[in-house]
Amino acid sequence: MMNTHQDSEQQLAASGPQAEAGEVFVDFEPVGRRGPCARGSTLLDCARLLGAGIAAVCGGHGTCGRCKVVPATDTVSGPTTIETTLLSHSELSAGVRLACQCRVLRDCLVTVPPESLSTPQRAQIEGLEVAAGSDPPVTSVEVTVSAPSMHDVQGDADRVLHAAGKGTATIDVAAARALPPLLRASDWALRLAIRDDEVIRVSNLSMPTLGLAVDLGTTKIAAYLVNMLSGEVLAAEGRMNPQIRYGEDVVSRMTHALTNEGGARDLCTSVVDALNEMTERLVASVGYTTDALVEAVIVGNTAMHHLLLTLPVDSLSRSPYVPAISAPMDIKARELGLRLSQGAYVHVFPNIAGFVGGDHVAALLAIDASPSGSPTLVIDIGTNTEVCLLANGRRTSVSCASGPAFEGGHIRDGMRAAAGAIEHVEISGDEVHVQTIEDSDPVGLCGSGILDTLAEMHRNGIVDRMGRLDTSHSRVKNSDRGKEYVLVSGEGRNGKPSIGMTQGDVRQLQLAKSAIETGIQLLLVHEQLAPTDLSAVVVAGAFGTYIDLQSAMAIGMLPELPLERYKQVGNAAGAGAKLALSSLARRREAVEIAARTGYLELAAEPTFMKRFVDNTYIAPFEMTEGD
Amino acid sequence: MMNTHQDSEQQLAASGPQAEAGEVFVDFEPVGRRGPCARGSTLLDCARLLGAGIAAVCGGHGTCGRCKVVPATDTVSGPTTIETTLLSHSELSAGVRLACQCRVLRDCLVTVPPESLSTPQRAQIEGLEVAAGSDPPVTSVEVTVSAPSMHDVQGDADRVLHAAGKGTATIDVAAARALPPLLRASDWALRLAIRDDEVIRVSNLSMPTLGLAVDLGTTKIAAYLVNMLSGEVLAAEGRMNPQIRYGEDVVSRMTHALTNEGGARDLCTSVVDALNEMTERLVASVGYTTDALVEAVIVGNTAMHHLLLTLPVDSLSRSPYVPAISAPMDIKARELGLRLSQGAYVHVFPNIAGFVGGDHVAALLAIDASPSGSPTLVIDIGTNTEVCLLANGRRTSVSCASGPAFEGGHIRDGMRAAAGAIEHVEISGDEVHVQTIEDSDPVGLCGSGILDTLAEMHRNGIVDRMGRLDTSHSRVKNSDRGKEYVLVSGEGRNGKPSIGMTQGDVRQLQLAKSAIETGIQLLLVHEQLAPTDLSAVVVAGAFGTYIDLQSAMAIGMLPELPLERYKQVGNAAGAGAKLALSSLARRREAVEIAARTGYLELAAEPTFMKRFVDNTYIAPFEMTEGD
Repeated sequence: MMNTHQDSEQQLAASGPQAEAGEVFVDFEPVGRRGPCARGSTLLDCARLLGAGIAAVCGGHGTCGRCKVVPATDTVSGPTTIETTLLSHSELSAGVRLACQCRVLRDCLVTVPPESLSTPQRAQIEGLEVAAGSDPPVTSVEVTVSAPSMHDVQGDADRVLHAAGKGTATIDVAAARALPPLLRASDWALRLAIRDDEVIRVSNLSMPTLGLAVDLGTTKIAAYLVNMLSGEVLAAEGRMNPQIRYGEDVVSRMTHALTNEGGARDLCTSVVDALNEMTERLVASVGYTTDALVEAVIVGNTAMHHLLLTLPVDSLSRSPYVPAISAPMDIKARELGLRLSQGAYVHVFPNIAGFVGGDHVAALLAIDASPSGSPTLVIDIGTNTEVCLLANGRRTSVSCASGPAFEGGHIRDGMRAAAGAIEHVEISGDEVHVQTIEDSDPVGLCGSGILDTLAEMHRNGIVDRMGRLDTSHSRVKNSDRGKEYVLVSGEGRNGKPSIGMTQGDVRQLQLAKSAIETGIQLLLVHEQLAPTDLSAVVVAGAFGTYIDLQSAMAIGMLPELPLERYKQVGNAAGAGAKLALSSLARRREAVEIAARTGYLELAAEPTFMKRFVDNTYIAPFEMTEGD
Repeated sequence: MMNTHQDSEQQLAASGPQAEAGEVFVDFEPVGRRGPCARGSTLLDCARLLGAGIAAVCGGHGTCGRCKVVPATDTVSGPTTIETTLLSHSELSAGVRLACQCRVLRDCLVTVPPESLSTPQRAQIEGLEVAAGSDPPVTSVEVTVSAPSMHDVQGDADRVLHAAGKGTATIDVAAARALPPLLRASDWALRLAIRDDEVIRVSNLSMPTLGLAVDLGTTKIAAYLVNMLSGEVLAAEGRMNPQIRYGEDVVSRMTHALTNEGGARDLCTSVVDALNEMTERLVASVGYTTDALVEAVIVGNTAMHHLLLTLPVDSLSRSPYVPAISAPMDIKARELGLRLSQGAYVHVFPNIAGFVGGDHVAALLAIDASPSGSPTLVIDIGTNTEVCLLANGRRTSVSCASGPAFEGGHIRDGMRAAAGAIEHVEISGDEVHVQTIEDSDPVGLCGSGILDTLAEMHRNGIVDRMGRLDTSHSRVKNSDRGKEYVLVSGEGRNGKPSIGMTQGDVRQLQLAKSAIETGIQLLLVHEQLAPTDLSAVVVAGAFGTYIDLQSAMAIGMLPELPLERYKQVGNAAGAGAKLALSSLARRREAVEIAARTGYLELAAEPTFMKRFVDNTYIAPFEMTEGD
């Protein structure tokens, strides 16, 4: 699968938009807007042109200092007096610039920090609601002890454990350090957080017992602050995974870890820092500090898992793609650099295989479908799409290298789901109706809009079964960037560019949908089922939540089934993490799921390559003859 | 007890030797030689005068660079050209000087690093031999696995655990990090070290499974390298506890931790660094690296325990002297900064009370006497002397603030047990026979010599029951430092000083022996026993190993009993640590001992002060009327 994926990427690099003479190519990340801009224009102008949505309260007059960005070194003009005035010394040394002040000199990658975005991105935090477990891994006990005296010199920890009826329990060394002053300040009454016969936190009585559930995605991180005892979600936050600066997909990140001195450390640190920032904001939003947190559950794909734990990724990145470990792990948060309370642990979800990780296990846990029930398909669409078929008493998963096209990556006008992204499209003859996020002026296409566009183009005969654009159609232009179907006209040279779908974009989408379709087909073949045997199809993930299922069925990405058999569940991985946070039984269930889910290596299936080629046709899902 | 101890110290400071005009007071540590020297003389001359035994291969001509010392800041002349040539920049910045080059300007504390000592100090590593436990806490398993393939993509750790029949075990994260490259380099065959269902180390097959037993004393650290599976001791090392630079006794060290910013960190770091150095030398001496070490057991008194773990010592240093924790702890070595193998643990022994720590528990464990047997007394003599009486089915311990006198501290000519120390003394009329360590020229008195001197002076009537020197005796001089009994005559002013025992020294010894005698008395009273009821007295500790029991009995420090009832066992605490290293049953036994040993707070006993005063008489051990 890796090869297929890498090939696609090389192809993409060749087909991407190119800058012309007098133009430079500017890429705003993590918002994902990119395109040619006039050399010498300010980054703020470039952002406006490309719809990157950078905050500029003063309108670009260099007075508000809000439009902070980090352009790649040596790609823009030097700092102006306004910048040296408005930016701190440490910001300037860190390469922070004001977008309204610096002018682009050459092709340029610009990182836009979250606080400079004019509208927050849609965070991947929606998902299944979960109920609290009755068997939380961490329990809370209130204890009052008598003060020591000359005739009663029992140690503080021993005294407290004895009073709590936990004489055989141990205490974490950090909790033991905190205990003596706390006992004396709290009038000998306190709260213990106990995990598996170990006191992991001592606190005053008013301290709550909170946990953190994290879905650590390749692109986005979703974190939920949960009451460990009630299961209630108190706050949630989504943000981009900052590792994106080392590469958009798992392969390029693992390559960074393998080929750069300190690369693995960089990747780990960046995500740990992000998690600490999110954690601190989340607990602060409900009026607490990180002392309130007694546990975290982290789910992620196998590469994210390895990079977080700085496990070596050499074997994982090469055939046969073997993880260092698939079993779940419980690690002291402080050992990972994560700031929770004294002796809190992080529970890291088990993986199934090199390309089917703990996030998929968590999604399967949340969906709670039995392999002994009627056949059910679970699909988590992303840069890597995991599909699991539950049928005949078995769970079998595949990993499809669908690439980033459906997340807006490597698509000329693709972007992530932010204001101005076209999320739905209807085409009727020469008419095009687009719906954008927040009804803003359209600036690009996010995943669901891309899918709709292709489906509508196909329904209207603008693109044929082979993926060829109908050059006779009034909206198909033969521009300098090749053939393109124009959705929204631009305003001429140096004005707003048009938004459309190029022949190259269509090719990318054909590869992406074929990867998914082929994975589903081979799973059905594996269980000797027809698509119509599926009684339920659960579509998880942010993209899956927003797509038009009719469009997905129209191009063959998903099997044609009555709509009521489909269920779009949002961030199921995050929901699974929340479930496991407050229930030991759910953690055991996750281990069972990971251990009992078969992994079908698509590339090892003899019919894989033929199917993959056949499935690039834009046509409804279809099993081939002989299946 | 603390008060008694502190009072003694103040008294000592007042009665110590004073420097005259033209003289300065120089103190060489850790060897413990100190006295007045001519202002302006070199530190090497001072060392020779005081018998500090500094190595000077070239004879003090400034060519060998061996006589490195660290004098306190601003107490000596500035660096000479010879020093700036022979010493590195980093040495000079760290205050390292050559003793033959720098001249003493004012009262001066000089630290002599071990490598500059002309003869190594007697290390406290002798002790009971121990047999291996049949139930080691860490076991070693050899495993060979099949290589993964496209059709077998099980994770490395899962594969190994499954093959070892340990499917439910976990693996330490550092071991998991080491596993993938190791497996591939070792042809899929490896050795696992497993502790309590956790793989704590993965290694090649040839790696041994070693452990470290440490007796962390206030003055000395003894470390033993042990084969975890056979119990065999492969190497041992003793060295000074570098915390000594923050104070000689536990009270001054705790005060340093409490009153200095970063003080607790200093104390912890210095001992951790020393342990790492010892560990590296020990494993190197048998041809391995620290990867060979899978476990360490550390025993120490309660203050050493707290300072190692950076537990707060505020409550421990004030009445009622409550430890933060008495229960044993198992902590990842890396969390304490100790360099063992990947996921190795440190097992820290349980404490009994604030002044009866894990070293005493370890000694009781090693001695293996049952409280249900005939009455047995266990004495571990040190700056703090712990005494335990096993009788009537009970164990009861006391802590006696005996002070450092018997270790040569605060005694004018006292020194530690190094070459030239007088270790045995016989007085007959005006004749004095002294025996020195290594038969070197006498330079001072170590503990056993001090004890002998007092006993022999008393036997010869040179000192009376009240501790008064007989000024009519030919060897009792009324020098400028007060009355003094001269053992070895000096060579006049600026030559070698005399060696003797001053009236002030006798007073210190009276306090020290009384502290021990009173502790033993109160234990016997507690169990309603007479001294002759004791069927065995076990004397542990370095000092206890070398003392003449007759002398100790003569002055009343130990009860008068037939010699065959005494047993001098050396470092019993170290022996206990070794026992526990390779046996879980022994660890459980240590917990039992700690939990079931009563602690008698001497200061809380109504007769304590009267007894303490009475027992300052130099006379054989005697219970007072009414006992």
